[in-house]
Amino acid sequence: MPNAALARLKARFTRIAALGEAASILHWDAATMMPPGGGASRGEQLAALAGLSHELLTAPVVRDDLEISLPEGEWEQANLALMARDHARATALPTALVEATARANSACEKIWRDAKATADFALVRPALTEVVRLQREAAQALAAELGMDPYDALMDGYQHGVTAADVEPVFTAYEAFLAEALPRAEAIQAGKPAPVPLPGPFPVEIQRRLCRALSERIGLDYDHARLDESLHPFCGGTPADVRLTTFHDERDVAKALLGVLHETGHALYERGLPQDWARQPVGEAAGMAAHESQSLIVEMQACRSDAFLGFLGGELRAAFGGPAAPYEARNLAGLWRHVGRGFIRVDADEITYPAHVILRFRLERALIGGDLAVADLPDAWNDGMRAMLGITPPDDTRGCLQDIHWHDGAFGYFPSYTLGAMAAAQLMKAARAAVPGLDAALGRGDMAPLLGWLRVNVHGRGSLLGFQDLLRAATGKPLDPSDFIEHLTARYLTA
Amino acid sequence: MPNAALARLKARFTRIAALGEAASILHWDAATMMPPGGGASRGEQLAALAGLSHELLTAPVVRDDLEISLPEGEWEQANLALMARDHARATALPTALVEATARANSACEKIWRDAKATADFALVRPALTEVVRLQREAAQALAAELGMDPYDALMDGYQHGVTAADVEPVFTAYEAFLAEALPRAEAIQAGKPAPVPLPGPFPVEIQRRLCRALSERIGLDYDHARLDESLHPFCGGTPADVRLTTFHDERDVAKALLGVLHETGHALYERGLPQDWARQPVGEAAGMAAHESQSLIVEMQACRSDAFLGFLGGELRAAFGGPAAPYEARNLAGLWRHVGRGFIRVDADEITYPAHVILRFRLERALIGGDLAVADLPDAWNDGMRAMLGITPPDDTRGCLQDIHWHDGAFGYFPSYTLGAMAAAQLMKAARAAVPGLDAALGRGDMAPLLGWLRVNVHGRGSLLGFQDLLRAATGKPLDPSDFIEHLTARYLTA
Repeated sequence: MPNAALARLKARFTRIAALGEAASILHWDAATMMPPGGGASRGEQLAALAGLSHELLTAPVVRDDLEISLPEGEWEQANLALMARDHARATALPTALVEATARANSACEKIWRDAKATADFALVRPALTEVVRLQREAAQALAAELGMDPYDALMDGYQHGVTAADVEPVFTAYEAFLAEALPRAEAIQAGKPAPVPLPGPFPVEIQRRLCRALSERIGLDYDHARLDESLHPFCGGTPADVRLTTFHDERDVAKALLGVLHETGHALYERGLPQDWARQPVGEAAGMAAHESQSLIVEMQACRSDAFLGFLGGELRAAFGGPAAPYEARNLAGLWRHVGRGFIRVDADEITYPAHVILRFRLERALIGGDLAVADLPDAWNDGMRAMLGITPPDDTRGCLQDIHWHDGAFGYFPSYTLGAMAAAQLMKAARAAVPGLDAALGRGDMAPLLGWLRVNVHGRGSLLGFQDLLRAATGKPLDPSDFIEHLTARYLTA
Repeated sequence: MPNAALARLKARFTRIAALGEAASILHWDAATMMPPGGGASRGEQLAALAGLSHELLTAPVVRDDLEISLPEGEWEQANLALMARDHARATALPTALVEATARANSACEKIWRDAKATADFALVRPALTEVVRLQREAAQALAAELGMDPYDALMDGYQHGVTAADVEPVFTAYEAFLAEALPRAEAIQAGKPAPVPLPGPFPVEIQRRLCRALSERIGLDYDHARLDESLHPFCGGTPADVRLTTFHDERDVAKALLGVLHETGHALYERGLPQDWARQPVGEAAGMAAHESQSLIVEMQACRSDAFLGFLGGELRAAFGGPAAPYEARNLAGLWRHVGRGFIRVDADEITYPAHVILRFRLERALIGGDLAVADLPDAWNDGMRAMLGITPPDDTRGCLQDIHWHDGAFGYFPSYTLGAMAAAQLMKAARAAVPGLDAALGRGDMAPLLGWLRVNVHGRGSLLGFQDLLRAATGKPLDPSDFIEHLTARYLTA
């Protein structure tokens, strides 16, 4: 009974997705609403949801039903293939390994907080060594099951449909560009007058209203969304009930403002996913790089464009008052598109951000491949920073200890940031070519033309296509760094 | 392997409880935070949690493990007995009946909203007839499995350890008291000067601060609790993370204030449950009547006492200002302990509230027993109101349509309110006898002596004892209306 098997699978994956949605709301609650004493019991709740979800995914009946199902049409076929992939990934890892990994990650992450605070890599080295050992074991188990390279198998968990072989030439091309472009961008910037800071302070209540109004203005429907505050901003929740967060600093409106525009990009993607396939694998977003492309096309491509900055300056002045000059588009560009060599990834500008990611990609590949020992990580990190940005971190807190990712067991995730940034430029170029008046609309604070194109070419496709195929369908080619380089050249390398 | 079986059961019930906790937070979120468009997907999430919980509870391995487990000590024995009861209740109902009930309840509840708005009982009669038919079927199935009377089997679902045979004589005794006491209380009240209303308005922001400060003052630890706003106030969440809600009316501070004190009573019970048995059946609260006893001992027994009103008046005047007279304990008592014959249960005073409950208890027992047809409900209701309170509802909105309970399939729940009120009086009397200085402490706004006694004698016992045994252990006797009658006599029948 192929149809009965398919129906059973769809019902099972609906349930798995519903558990995931419940967990997502509970994560949001933990970050925004939960009283401090709720942490331990929240851990129990999330562990129960994760455990049940894993059992539903790995049940032997899933394999049987996958074998006899006869899907019809490309959506059903893609959905079934994604079910098979989820099942294969979940069954590839022995329970003992999953549990050991969870324990090792949790232990390492705790030690890392102290190590980072005291710039003491030696403190976290043993725990990180264990994390890497288990990640290598997991990568090999996944690789054997999925028939791919171990590092690719980890990356596949975050971004389906892109491999290190896709990434390597793209990153190499970018490195060559960077070596030449960065000094030039710095020289051009030095030749311009320094931007004037915005007057401030920026009362939090006004920031709140402005952030919400702007995210609504660019297309987020608050009948299906909330905007709250948390220490680390994120976009969570579910496609029908998106939960954005931000963090307000009374002295600096840019953090919350640009942060909310970024998270709104994520939220618009979730809101635009195909509703006919809600709570099915093919109805989900197409991975982390695709997700980052949507936050960055909104924040970096659209909202930091000259056109939109002109609109944004008017909104800011209306909200906070003061003289006109600081709010002019040219001045906002000087403030919010400043280029510089820094140690910290999350503070980096558009040109140098990929350098931070390329370094991490190379190092984590070497760690997983067994070509780099954890003990040698600080030196390798600092060598890489010198080679790409010409700077040496004064300590490991500003070097290999700065990110939580590895210390929490996330290997294969970092490339998503730069794949997303490049994909955003590639998609923006295609959208501009396809939609007349896109930039004029941005100048009026109107994101509808861009959003309409993204709904059709990205959001509405869910996970029907892998990352490279999604780009092919939307832009006519797989990931190509030249559009991103063209974007940076236009924005930073023309005097 | 009896110990392995017991460990398996405990792990399974931990998981079931964790799913229940997740659902409780999601229910709270739906009432307080969720954007309106999130409703449908929230329904999917809750259905998945309920379905998985039911499957975990009814799995055949549970019966096997229950049979071979060898629990040691009274807590483990009680825990196993409660597991067996939960399993028996869940397996007694065929899936088709559970689903038909869920559909019929949901359909009836929707129609009821219109019927109530238009005072049109005929509109909801067919749907309510179906709800009652399915409840009777469920009651019979449960009765056969549990070896008890069908109505008792429903009541047992809300309050373990008390039967209609326990309730009937208690309610009959109360009816006799009411017939004589109500006119007397009214006459005494009429002989006193009318109370002065509090000045007002009561700015919502000040109400919020006051409500939170008072609930904290009487013992709620906000490291493990939140206080928010919702249309219908409730106490939800989990023992480690209690979520209270209220509703503020700028013209009337009493609603929110007394409401929060009531919900704080529920919250303190949850907070005081035995942590060693967290997420096990024996670690849960001992049913709805026991829960109501804890909200009412705080709200009605403690906070509306002369002693506490003296303290509360000072707090209110400090918050809202104005002349001293309205805030005096005697005046607050006149406002907040007013006696009167009304049609609406939720607006009723302490003396007449049980009449509303007794009426519903008699009617729902007759409906489940097959002695009353749904078509005859309005007349039977109005006859009952005339007999007990001497008033006739002018329409069914102020009669048998006022409560959601029956129209949502809740039969056997109503007695909990009055069992709780009576138990609260009985527990308060025992606490006063055991704890010197309890009332003097209340006069200083200090609930610690009462709370300390409740922690030991009620909260910390979890579900170790059924309702009647809990009262026996705490007060030396099963439910006895005389302590409640004594309380009402002292409060309302002394000139």
